[in-house]
Amino acid sequence: MEAYVAIGNDSLLALNQLISEKKYSSVFILVDSNTRQFCLPLVQRQADLLISAPVIEIPAGEGGKGLANLEKIITVLLKKNADRQSLLVNVGGGMVCDIGGFSASVFKRGINFIHIPTTLLAMVDAAIGGKTGINYLEKKNVIGTYAEPDAVFVYPHFLNTLSARELKSGYAEIFKHILLSDSKWFHSLVGNPLNGFGESDLFDLIRHSVHFKKSITTEDFRENGLRKILNFGHTLGHALESHSMRGVRPLRHGEAIAAGMTGELFLSHKLAGFPQEDMYAAIVFLRNLFNHIQLKFVPDDLFPYLHADKKNSNEKIAFSLLSSPGHPAGVFYPSHDQVLESINFLLLEFSSAPVQ
Amino acid sequence: MEAYVAIGNDSLLALNQLISEKKYSSVFILVDSNTRQFCLPLVQRQADLLISAPVIEIPAGEGGKGLANLEKIITVLLKKNADRQSLLVNVGGGMVCDIGGFSASVFKRGINFIHIPTTLLAMVDAAIGGKTGINYLEKKNVIGTYAEPDAVFVYPHFLNTLSARELKSGYAEIFKHILLSDSKWFHSLVGNPLNGFGESDLFDLIRHSVHFKKSITTEDFRENGLRKILNFGHTLGHALESHSMRGVRPLRHGEAIAAGMTGELFLSHKLAGFPQEDMYAAIVFLRNLFNHIQLKFVPDDLFPYLHADKKNSNEKIAFSLLSSPGHPAGVFYPSHDQVLESINFLLLEFSSAPVQ
Repeated sequence: MEAYVAIGNDSLLALNQLISEKKYSSVFILVDSNTRQFCLPLVQRQADLLISAPVIEIPAGEGGKGLANLEKIITVLLKKNADRQSLLVNVGGGMVCDIGGFSASVFKRGINFIHIPTTLLAMVDAAIGGKTGINYLEKKNVIGTYAEPDAVFVYPHFLNTLSARELKSGYAEIFKHILLSDSKWFHSLVGNPLNGFGESDLFDLIRHSVHFKKSITTEDFRENGLRKILNFGHTLGHALESHSMRGVRPLRHGEAIAAGMTGELFLSHKLAGFPQEDMYAAIVFLRNLFNHIQLKFVPDDLFPYLHADKKNSNEKIAFSLLSSPGHPAGVFYPSHDQVLESINFLLLEFSSAPVQ
Repeated sequence: MEAYVAIGNDSLLALNQLISEKKYSSVFILVDSNTRQFCLPLVQRQADLLISAPVIEIPAGEGGKGLANLEKIITVLLKKNADRQSLLVNVGGGMVCDIGGFSASVFKRGINFIHIPTTLLAMVDAAIGGKTGINYLEKKNVIGTYAEPDAVFVYPHFLNTLSARELKSGYAEIFKHILLSDSKWFHSLVGNPLNGFGESDLFDLIRHSVHFKKSITTEDFRENGLRKILNFGHTLGHALESHSMRGVRPLRHGEAIAAGMTGELFLSHKLAGFPQEDMYAAIVFLRNLFNHIQLKFVPDDLFPYLHADKKNSNEKIAFSLLSSPGHPAGVFYPSHDQVLESINFLLLEFSSAPVQ
């Protein structure tokens, strides 16, 4: 079943209607400590059927996405007699959508759920496409399912609650979606790198990302082929993100993906013929957008994470690369030396002191 | 994808061939402490590609089917770099099939698995139909998925390793399948209750059960309708089983289902017109087969479990009942008093001292 997606500042008005129509036997809300305070009241103002629903709160941050909080969610659902006609409404960023979607997909072998993404990143990525997951032993999403929510409500008004850093994290995935799908848009963006996304209408960007990702994931829900293109930037990106979770200043997902795309643009150039000029244009754009991050590690730190990547096959590290902007080229398995070279390449770009 | 099912004492010969053909990137074996000793050597003798596969062992018994052992399985898969082309071979009874299937279905969002059921019950029930699950807070299968194994190998030779009590546990599900599907076979069985399944060919019984369950679950994989008929006996049965897990002598699944069917035959008679004569004939047959069990509890003990049943809707307890042998009648929601009456009815049948 394909999820219903509503986008816009009036989107939440449809939520009450959906809840009445679907006759859910009971409704639960999942939030983290931030979204409970800043987002839930806005949701309940527009959808008053949610006012009396029990609220399950988990800690904010990637650390909240583990087995302990899965147990917490399942325990509440169990104690309050949630059944297969119940609904779980996930109000939060990617972390809440991922663990909430996973909990709903395995509780009694699957109950209904809805995503209300509250970050730009979750609006254009985590909430779309039906991947759920939790982290285990520092490995991201290593336990998970494919499960479609009943609906996704994208309410851009939430973006006012985000820090600049959090917003930028979302722009990394938006950039990836444009790079994968629209050569013209890509060139107009990178032609003016100091401007970032400044001239673009945020609604247009969100709408493009949602529709692009949805079209891909609807065609290939379980990632047997086409969907793999969305993994561009994510092999190195996930390793960077997982590794940084051990440090004092973990990277946001989009930050890790921006650095990951830099390394994978290099591999795209080397292995799939991605034009050098476009590679550097993309990297200058990304480096300008993410000028606040500075990476400090040795390449060998990443290999344990790279070898545990879900996409690998026969112990070879898998990369989804592009042959040019707008043209995904499929899955490649570079040699160890090529992977090492790509890490050194991205390190060179992202180890310099932040630009103020 | 529908699972390939091979039945017979030469069935395991096809396992080697399947493993070579499918080009799995790595193979893992899940066993419990019993099946490692008594069954795994037999499997490896016929499928020598399994000799070098890492073996994951969990404790035998329903207590092994919890989060701690899920973590154990996932940890081994992770440390040994299992990927999406890996295979998990579950060698065991329903417990091993359920938790092994669940682990495989959520590890990296789903890897391949095969069931080699080693008990009669698992051959005719747990290994067929793609339900997976683990127990949580004493609730059976409250966390689970629907996921089809690549194949199921039913190797009846294993039945020689089982105790009489374990074998009988499997006969309960076989009886349920005959009662649901074949009025003529039902009447010929219960016409000679003291004989049990004595005259029947065990291969025929297994083949009928596998094919009947497979036909139902293929048509309605996610239990939206038709498949619910297989829950006959399981609302009271699961509650009895869960409750008995707290005591010193837990019931086997089939024993609980035999008692559960007794209560649900009563409800079938009261609510769906199941003929009284057939009800008593079925109960005499079951009581003779399970004359070694004796139930001691008060009806109120069961209600917390009944209210947590996965099949419920809007806090009403769901029962799949029959209108006559071979004719399932759909889902019913009896009143509290009717449920209470059915519990008292089965208690009357099953509280008497065991017949020697």
